[in-house]
Amino acid sequence: MKNAQHDEMIHLLRNHRSIREFQQKRIPPDLINTVLTAGQAASSSSHGQSYTIINVTDDEKKRLLADYAGKQTHIRDCSNFLVFCADLYRLEQIASLNGVNLKEVIESTEMLLISTIDAALAAQNVAIAAESLQLGIVYIGGIRNNPEQVSELLELPYRVYPVFGMCVGYPQPDKVPDSKPRLPLAVVCHENSYSPFEDVYPEIQEYDEEMRDYYANRSHGSRTATWSGAMLDKRKVPRRMFMKHFLNQRGFSLR
Amino acid sequence: MKNAQHDEMIHLLRNHRSIREFQQKRIPPDLINTVLTAGQAASSSSHGQSYTIINVTDDEKKRLLADYAGKQTHIRDCSNFLVFCADLYRLEQIASLNGVNLKEVIESTEMLLISTIDAALAAQNVAIAAESLQLGIVYIGGIRNNPEQVSELLELPYRVYPVFGMCVGYPQPDKVPDSKPRLPLAVVCHENSYSPFEDVYPEIQEYDEEMRDYYANRSHGSRTATWSGAMLDKRKVPRRMFMKHFLNQRGFSLR
Repeated sequence: MKNAQHDEMIHLLRNHRSIREFQQKRIPPDLINTVLTAGQAASSSSHGQSYTIINVTDDEKKRLLADYAGKQTHIRDCSNFLVFCADLYRLEQIASLNGVNLKEVIESTEMLLISTIDAALAAQNVAIAAESLQLGIVYIGGIRNNPEQVSELLELPYRVYPVFGMCVGYPQPDKVPDSKPRLPLAVVCHENSYSPFEDVYPEIQEYDEEMRDYYANRSHGSRTATWSGAMLDKRKVPRRMFMKHFLNQRGFSLR
Repeated sequence: MKNAQHDEMIHLLRNHRSIREFQQKRIPPDLINTVLTAGQAASSSSHGQSYTIINVTDDEKKRLLADYAGKQTHIRDCSNFLVFCADLYRLEQIASLNGVNLKEVIESTEMLLISTIDAALAAQNVAIAAESLQLGIVYIGGIRNNPEQVSELLELPYRVYPVFGMCVGYPQPDKVPDSKPRLPLAVVCHENSYSPFEDVYPEIQEYDEEMRDYYANRSHGSRTATWSGAMLDKRKVPRRMFMKHFLNQRGFSLR
């Protein structure tokens, strides 16, 4: 690969932005399959591939999922709404057919981590593949607002849970937002040992000002939050406190 | 981006293989920073960036981490060993400085998911960025064999836990393995609802034969397992059953 191509890939990765305004245009099945098989190429723990993607193309299901996720209309408007699920059901079925009892292992918190991470790594490959084909994506954690309804709608069996969704579609060219600044590298990446908070706090404060400008520009001056302020506003309302119970009910992390 | 470049990107994603044999050559700091900032560009829940990467370059620490992960010498031999951590400490510190009490929220299983997924999405971007620069990577779940020792060595505070590691370095050109076949797309990707197991099982059986050939080739005939067989062998030994207790002790998923 030539240097110019390396630069293009790094540029593509750094150029990510979440797309929430889509054209009314369907992605051809061949193209979405290209994206999905690129997703499959991500690593998985012990090559277990402990995830399943539900590719939602049905309009009525997308409309319901948009409601479940808190009236996120881009779920309805995108071409394909992908629901990434952690999946230990497939393994348990294979075990059962082979007379192996994996109940204790499958119910471990370790297997919750493995299957959740497998789903996330595949998803990020899907995101990059889609963006390289000039499609737009946005992750939807909001499906965890109503995970039971989502599971029922998609007929997820016991030992499968919906981790997050992803809208995929053709972006409306005039509605692509600016890319959002990230925390300074020194805040999120430390060398050899964890940096004391007081060492990174000045850089968080600088970033707070950068994000204040970003939010102000994007809202034409109406939003004055810093990053820290926006985070605290977001997190101080307890949300999805049912998650432990939900996961346990679906057969995850019981021990 | 031109079509040829789209193809390059999809090819790059599909061409992933885990590298465990590295040249004794250090990655220049500028180059690793390019990789890490590309990692930062991944999405995170509510833009919270709830992860920290410990970039381990110290030889003694790499040697110890190789032991903790079960004598994985590639951790010692790679240029940079990146430890991806879920991080709720940063948020709690910011909250505390602003007089906000986030204890209940931070201790939720939902925040375990958010921070673990944030770390995983950043990691997969790091993997793709590294591979686009012709570096090799391998994920290391093995650091969860001894997460307390890893946490202590890297001085991780309460509310931070090591999710997985990643070796990054220059591959030994004659020791790059073949890429591993994935499950047929129809097994891991279902349209509109979860496919019954009996519908996908024949494809799993075909894949079992494909993987039997793959393992046999790679081992010069000494390994005769199928994928299902290898998975059951791997999973039937309960591993890391302490994970729930460990996470609770580090302040995660307490409610």
